[in-house]
Amino acid sequence: MGRRFIEQLSDGDTVEDIYLVTDRQYRANRNGVFYIQLDLRDKSGQMNARFWNASEALFKSFGHGDFLLVKGKVQSFQGGLQLILTSLERVEESQIELGDFLPRTPCDARKLEERLRSTLLKLTNPHLRALAECYFMDSAFMLGFTQAPAGVRVHHAYIGGLLEHVVAMIDAAERLLPLYPEIDREVLLFGIFLHDSGKVRELVYSRAFGYSDEGQLLGHLAIGCQILEDKIRQVPELTEEPFPAELRLRLQHMILAHHGELQYGSPKVPMTPEAVMLHAIDNLDSRLHIYKREIKEDRGPSAWTPFNSALQRRIYKGGTDGAGADYAAPMESHD
Amino acid sequence: MGRRFIEQLSDGDTVEDIYLVTDRQYRANRNGVFYIQLDLRDKSGQMNARFWNASEALFKSFGHGDFLLVKGKVQSFQGGLQLILTSLERVEESQIELGDFLPRTPCDARKLEERLRSTLLKLTNPHLRALAECYFMDSAFMLGFTQAPAGVRVHHAYIGGLLEHVVAMIDAAERLLPLYPEIDREVLLFGIFLHDSGKVRELVYSRAFGYSDEGQLLGHLAIGCQILEDKIRQVPELTEEPFPAELRLRLQHMILAHHGELQYGSPKVPMTPEAVMLHAIDNLDSRLHIYKREIKEDRGPSAWTPFNSALQRRIYKGGTDGAGADYAAPMESHD
Amino acid sequence: MGRRFIEQLSDGDTVEDIYLVTDRQYRANRNGVFYIQLDLRDKSGQMNARFWNASEALFKSFGHGDFLLVKGKVQSFQGGLQLILTSLERVEESQIELGDFLPRTPCDARKLEERLRSTLLKLTNPHLRALAECYFMDSAFMLGFTQAPAGVRVHHAYIGGLLEHVVAMIDAAERLLPLYPEIDREVLLFGIFLHDSGKVRELVYSRAFGYSDEGQLLGHLAIGCQILEDKIRQVPELTEEPFPAELRLRLQHMILAHHGELQYGSPKVPMTPEAVMLHAIDNLDSRLHIYKREIKEDRGPSAWTPFNSALQRRIYKGGTDGAGADYAAPMESHD
Amino acid sequence: MGRRFIEQLSDGDTVEDIYLVTDRQYRANRNGVFYIQLDLRDKSGQMNARFWNASEALFKSFGHGDFLLVKGKVQSFQGGLQLILTSLERVEESQIELGDFLPRTPCDARKLEERLRSTLLKLTNPHLRALAECYFMDSAFMLGFTQAPAGVRVHHAYIGGLLEHVVAMIDAAERLLPLYPEIDREVLLFGIFLHDSGKVRELVYSRAFGYSDEGQLLGHLAIGCQILEDKIRQVPELTEEPFPAELRLRLQHMILAHHGELQYGSPKVPMTPEAVMLHAIDNLDSRLHIYKREIKEDRGPSAWTPFNSALQRRIYKGGTDGAGADYAAPMESHD
Amino acid sequence: MGRRFIEQLSDGDTVEDIYLVTDRQYRANRNGVFYIQLDLRDKSGQMNARFWNASEALFKSFGHGDFLLVKGKVQSFQGGLQLILTSLERVEESQIELGDFLPRTPCDARKLEERLRSTLLKLTNPHLRALAECYFMDSAFMLGFTQAPAGVRVHHAYIGGLLEHVVAMIDAAERLLPLYPEIDREVLLFGIFLHDSGKVRELVYSRAFGYSDEGQLLGHLAIGCQILEDKIRQVPELTEEPFPAELRLRLQHMILAHHGELQYGSPKVPMTPEAVMLHAIDNLDSRLHIYKREIKEDRGPSAWTPFNSALQRRIYKGGTDGAGADYAAPMESHD
Amino acid sequence: MGRRFIEQLSDGDTVEDIYLVTDRQYRANRNGVFYIQLDLRDKSGQMNARFWNASEALFKSFGHGDFLLVKGKVQSFQGGLQLILTSLERVEESQIELGDFLPRTPCDARKLEERLRSTLLKLTNPHLRALAECYFMDSAFMLGFTQAPAGVRVHHAYIGGLLEHVVAMIDAAERLLPLYPEIDREVLLFGIFLHDSGKVRELVYSRAFGYSDEGQLLGHLAIGCQILEDKIRQVPELTEEPFPAELRLRLQHMILAHHGELQYGSPKVPMTPEAVMLHAIDNLDSRLHIYKREIKEDRGPSAWTPFNSALQRRIYKGGTDGAGADYAAPMESHD
Repeated sequence: MGRRFIEQLSDGDTVEDIYLVTDRQYRANRNGVFYIQLDLRDKSGQMNARFWNASEALFKSFGHGDFLLVKGKVQSFQGGLQLILTSLERVEESQIELGDFLPRTPCDARKLEERLRSTLLKLTNPHLRALAECYFMDSAFMLGFTQAPAGVRVHHAYIGGLLEHVVAMIDAAERLLPLYPEIDREVLLFGIFLHDSGKVRELVYSRAFGYSDEGQLLGHLAIGCQILEDKIRQVPELTEEPFPAELRLRLQHMILAHHGELQYGSPKVPMTPEAVMLHAIDNLDSRLHIYKREIKEDRGPSAWTPFNSALQRRIYKGGTDGAGADYAAPMESHD
Repeated sequence: MGRRFIEQLSDGDTVEDIYLVTDRQYRANRNGVFYIQLDLRDKSGQMNARFWNASEALFKSFGHGDFLLVKGKVQSFQGGLQLILTSLERVEESQIELGDFLPRTPCDARKLEERLRSTLLKLTNPHLRALAECYFMDSAFMLGFTQAPAGVRVHHAYIGGLLEHVVAMIDAAERLLPLYPEIDREVLLFGIFLHDSGKVRELVYSRAFGYSDEGQLLGHLAIGCQILEDKIRQVPELTEEPFPAELRLRLQHMILAHHGELQYGSPKVPMTPEAVMLHAIDNLDSRLHIYKREIKEDRGPSAWTPFNSALQRRIYKGGTDGAGADYAAPMESHD
Repeated sequence: MGRRFIEQLSDGDTVEDIYLVTDRQYRANRNGVFYIQLDLRDKSGQMNARFWNASEALFKSFGHGDFLLVKGKVQSFQGGLQLILTSLERVEESQIELGDFLPRTPCDARKLEERLRSTLLKLTNPHLRALAECYFMDSAFMLGFTQAPAGVRVHHAYIGGLLEHVVAMIDAAERLLPLYPEIDREVLLFGIFLHDSGKVRELVYSRAFGYSDEGQLLGHLAIGCQILEDKIRQVPELTEEPFPAELRLRLQHMILAHHGELQYGSPKVPMTPEAVMLHAIDNLDSRLHIYKREIKEDRGPSAWTPFNSALQRRIYKGGTDGAGADYAAPMESHD
Repeated sequence: MGRRFIEQLSDGDTVEDIYLVTDRQYRANRNGVFYIQLDLRDKSGQMNARFWNASEALFKSFGHGDFLLVKGKVQSFQGGLQLILTSLERVEESQIELGDFLPRTPCDARKLEERLRSTLLKLTNPHLRALAECYFMDSAFMLGFTQAPAGVRVHHAYIGGLLEHVVAMIDAAERLLPLYPEIDREVLLFGIFLHDSGKVRELVYSRAFGYSDEGQLLGHLAIGCQILEDKIRQVPELTEEPFPAELRLRLQHMILAHHGELQYGSPKVPMTPEAVMLHAIDNLDSRLHIYKREIKEDRGPSAWTPFNSALQRRIYKGGTDGAGADYAAPMESHD
Repeated sequence: MGRRFIEQLSDGDTVEDIYLVTDRQYRANRNGVFYIQLDLRDKSGQMNARFWNASEALFKSFGHGDFLLVKGKVQSFQGGLQLILTSLERVEESQIELGDFLPRTPCDARKLEERLRSTLLKLTNPHLRALAECYFMDSAFMLGFTQAPAGVRVHHAYIGGLLEHVVAMIDAAERLLPLYPEIDREVLLFGIFLHDSGKVRELVYSRAFGYSDEGQLLGHLAIGCQILEDKIRQVPELTEEPFPAELRLRLQHMILAHHGELQYGSPKVPMTPEAVMLHAIDNLDSRLHIYKREIKEDRGPSAWTPFNSALQRRIYKGGTDGAGADYAAPMESHD
Repeated sequence: MGRRFIEQLSDGDTVEDIYLVTDRQYRANRNGVFYIQLDLRDKSGQMNARFWNASEALFKSFGHGDFLLVKGKVQSFQGGLQLILTSLERVEESQIELGDFLPRTPCDARKLEERLRSTLLKLTNPHLRALAECYFMDSAFMLGFTQAPAGVRVHHAYIGGLLEHVVAMIDAAERLLPLYPEIDREVLLFGIFLHDSGKVRELVYSRAFGYSDEGQLLGHLAIGCQILEDKIRQVPELTEEPFPAELRLRLQHMILAHHGELQYGSPKVPMTPEAVMLHAIDNLDSRLHIYKREIKEDRGPSAWTPFNSALQRRIYKGGTDGAGADYAAPMESHD
């Protein structure tokens, strides 16, 4: 029998299954009874769990990012559900199917990758085509590129999120390009492919999502530039020509400038039309992804989502014919 | 026998009265005992309440903003008081006297309104006088104007607060005007009346205080401008003359510029002397209202109020002859 | 014989034609010889002119924005051209063809307007369709909408620029919409039509381009909202239904939020997906318009345009295969 | 015969009088003719002057801030007037009446000072009264206090400007105080006296207006605090009691916090109600002084003053019934 | 037998000793059992304590900053240690050795002070040497100067921290000075001594660390300037010469400008080379002190310290050969 | 006979020598006489020159950055000197000694380089030593590193300026390191060598100073990282070991973080103690270089330098015993 996912559980269910630990604490209640408090997740969602009368040894037998085989019962608590555990046991990663535990793009990853490859391999500029081949031949890079999320929390925070985001941006670019003939289509499309490519090494995403040391110290802009430099060095083996200096600058510049402003971490502002358009499409796609997700995930009766601290605002869901009232506005307007 | 207000309750009192629910949660303690945690308020203050061994059905029988008839006992808890409830029951709004539940201006609202009306109806400019009449004839607007708070939390956050704030500003303006003869007195006074008039629709204040959908999406500056546009359109019926174009611009500008700077939500900075003075008086009156309230409400022994996050500072109450010491300063000075 | 436009003049030409005055000064050289210094323009460009030994009376006989019939000779000066005048005379506006003097969109304005009308009249939402009709029936508004520039200097600064910008944004939106099905297409398209509609009254553009008093005091956001309010009031006469309150809020919100951030003059940040997309498309189209124009108009040999103070950057034109060097960078990078 | 002031000169007048040099340059025209370019002023205004065929020795015979006896003729130039000099000669300060050369408050300085003295000497707090006496007994300080401008350029930039500004603020405070009984009247009034008192040493104003070294290195806030510390030390000789520590802190704090925010040069934000009110009244009076002066001094036909760079805006003068148009708006609104 | 310090306690120990209270709360658990929650500290560290079944009278018998003689037992809790108390009793300050309770510089305070004195007394400028003597003769000031921490929390937050920080800066300056001969060595060294001298009165540090009223209202820059003014007044008694005016300005300026920028609380930016160097050395020493402490105190397995809110960053400890991954990054990079 | 340098010229001298053109313009005076206006420089300074009655052909015969053999006479003009040319002729770069024309570090460049090499080659870490060798073996890089200025205008803007700045920082670091034993000396020293190494390609400095295309599009941070990546790849050939991953991150991070904050162009803030110290020393050395130069170069009589727009302040030169007054303060303090 297949596994039961968290989103399928309901009040009273008996559970015996494996989950990923994303937070754990050891506490005592006022009567001195010690318990373990856990956040468990699989790809379908997250659930709170509690193990009463737990020894410190049991607590120390596993860590954040480990997989636990747990037994217990689901009960309703504070309007949500909670797992009351009767046993828990760490299991080796080899025993589990990683794909069950991390959220994953709802799109067909194979098709996304196919879309990306065919777009870049059809470019007419032989240098760019050869450059694409250099990336595609690097199977470690490509594995990362198809697995990495686009972010840890803010947007596209799931396996394949980076690829999904990049292909969505390619789609948007292709549609806008006929309107702006001054844009060099091939440079822009390649820039879209490259702009977040450093996330392959900036982020870690084999279990939970986080940052690598390199990611925190260098960031995906600098990492992306280094990977590009590396690949450009390989191109002349394919083309038997030097890679054009100006083309290299335009590609590197698009990576470095894609956050648009210095205070957002770009050491250079966009100084080519392609860099401007790349920044705009990136912003639009990630911003709309957040709005869509916030509206979709919020089940509350209000016409407004809760305050989103990344956006510093709440989002209007509507549905009250403009007659809604909200008592939870986190910040007062200026008076 | 009349109702007993929250500020009149003391340790050991038995309670049977109606209160407004401003927060509610359903929780379990570590032994699995479920309870409802409530914030109850009337116009005199707020109190924490707890109902032990509560069913989820009971919890769901009422919501935020409802009125509850509760029975229970007051007990001392953590240096404050708490209500331990033995019964609670939702009552219809028709059974209650709304005035008992929302905080209300300490001033005589009737006199404030009279003060406002007589000021505006005595203006010598016939267009402004007629404009005032158009506002006063709109009884729904005037009901809102006399009921609305000036803010949800920061200042004048009580029924009648908007009116009180406006009349205080008129008083301040009348006193300052002889010193600045370059100011057009009538334009300024009318601007004071108008500046926050959009709050009548931006805020909701029939039970708890909050924001309407329109308030969050448009804000009181845009709403105030729309109401003004509407009323100006009616003026010629009274005056049989077109409303002067420049006068309209000066009034609209005062509404739009009264927050003083773009980053505080004004789409235009003050560009007339009247707009400058309106902004200054508004700022002074609201700022001093906060300082006064913070100093008055803080009963702590320190010479300093707690950190006020709207002001990003603590306020000096004094009384220690400058020899006080404080261990709770939330932010270290730069070293 | 038709008029000769400024862009057609060359060194040594004799001139006798009418031009628009966009700047004028009265000066003396060191030998006490007085002269008039002029900027003359027609729709094809601008030229510097000088009239030697001019009397003050002649200087005072015309002003900024007037049309002058001038005679003189073109001569080369400082690498450019200059008109040395032998006579000048003010002519009445009635004698001239305004279209010859103000720069004008290179697009076919008739087609642009047709494109706009057909888009909005094909919307399926009857309220929006009726609202469009209300705008279209207002011929004064429509004349302004098809004439107004989108800006005085920064982008689309020519007759018809607003309409061209709006239609370009509609094109962009139509192309992007299939990718973002969560966006309400009709609301977005209508918002694009509305977002800068206040520029019809914010700007003046019958001769030179400038700002009206209303434009400076209220701004095109507030003006656009007032026009919308006005038109919405007329809709029920066509639909025999009240205009939906939520729809009204969404439209007004798009106007108010389209600058994206408070410090750019929007009193509200975008809080609906449509407002986010509107802001992004507006930004993209106006930004690319500037880049395209700067690159096209700069005839210098450098790989870089001069410093653009609105963008606070120079733009890379390229063409040096990345081997260019520039000695005029106006700001040093941080060291 | 008395002197003729600059504002009395007109085209064709012969001049022989003394003026203050506020700028001087030595230049050659294209034919190698050297000339001296001067800005001359007296209390009534400023005029440009030129001396042709001037030797370098003549140029070096005087400096900025010197007084020159000049002969020459007034002529019209570029729409204004200019002095063409035939002789110039430096004169000693002892020969001139300083009051003729620096602009001076239009108010009766004697009355202003009397108003200040009587206000402070009537305070009921004996410590403050004694403190006032300590200031008043310091005749060098008082001479400075009655002579100093309130600023070099931005507002009240004339002899007596500081005193005029302080008395205007006292007037404003007295009028507002009855509305805010929580404010300590005597502390506020004394704070108004003190807030800019450091300008007595920050600025120099014996000839032209400028900054002392101390003014640039320490600023008037720190200087004002030091003077206050000094005077407080003398008070116990008069009162035979120690000066109250808390009162000293409240006074010093008002000086330090009167710019309102750190980025405007206050090392502390206002943390007492009196400091809040002091800052607001200071802001209001200085801001309105600028608006009034800009509107009064601008003789242009536009409904708008020229761009004021200290305020970063233009001011609306009106008078066009809202139908004005302006072609000189220095900054485009965001599009 | 000597006292046992907090850092020496381990699970199961029985405790009977005196500790300083730095936080206290009175709470009830869900069964209505009341308990006191305490933070206790001595110079070696801090520990959480709990007293079950406590009466409100017991809770009120002591306050923040008092010393308690407690009996109880250490137990392991949530991965740390906790004291479960069986008795607690307030003791008078006279009974305790203050040095046992407040953290103290690890350096030899006597040597630090000696270092400071000998440096300043060896200066060749007789005015500065005499000024140093004036400070050293003020034993109350010197007691404060050797006791005060350099900050309440951020850096050098322990008894003697100010002196340690100043001597470290003198060391740094002495080493750098040979490289920058344009710097006036004696002015710089004296400025280092002075720059934070106002902390002697800004902070309170007899028990816990906090701010005096004077510290919050005036800040250590203004206080330091006032002390300096006072001492400079005494110098001529020693030197029989007036104190040089420029030297006084340079010293005062170094105090006022040492935070480097207005928004960090300096009313003036550094305008002399000595003020620039003082600011840089101050910044370097305090910044490195934080990095060193954060890295040393963090015992976690991650290559990164927890997020430091004063620095708004985490610090890289390393030790994972660059292969670490971190799941707790508090802020996502811009995407 | 050797060349006469600009600083050796005086009024009346006859000149026949070669100079570098750093600015050129073609103008006419009011009598229609055309002339060429030039800025000429050699390593000793800069001088203004004028060629009367110049043909456009002559003007077009040379450009910015070319070398001209000029004949003419020096004359006094506006308090300075000016060259009146009678002939000018472009000469080939091969005929000139480049070292005569660009300003050059006053230090002995050979010794500076020797100092740098010996420091890095004595490091004990074999990976860093090998890395240094890889840089030193790259003679093109080293030529650039010893030639490049540290900036175009702001500081060390002369040939060899980068090397001088780096060696000065090494000196400063060596002196400070004993005080901060937690700093990894070898990592810091290597970081100092690397931090501005990208300027070798960011800047152009063979004639005048400017920016390369790569410099403007990528900046010296990204360029420096790419060079480092390149060199690290070569190290294992020397060491026969992989380059340590953590060491690579620490080096790259120092380059990326050395501007200290995002808004100054660093995509990452300093997160290691070495990066903090590098940033501080860099700041100190460059800042003091500016102060020293501004004070030294200003020959005016004021106690203050002119306003420096890079620093946004004037610098106090002193020498007036604190009694100076200045009438030219470009910005008024806040009032």
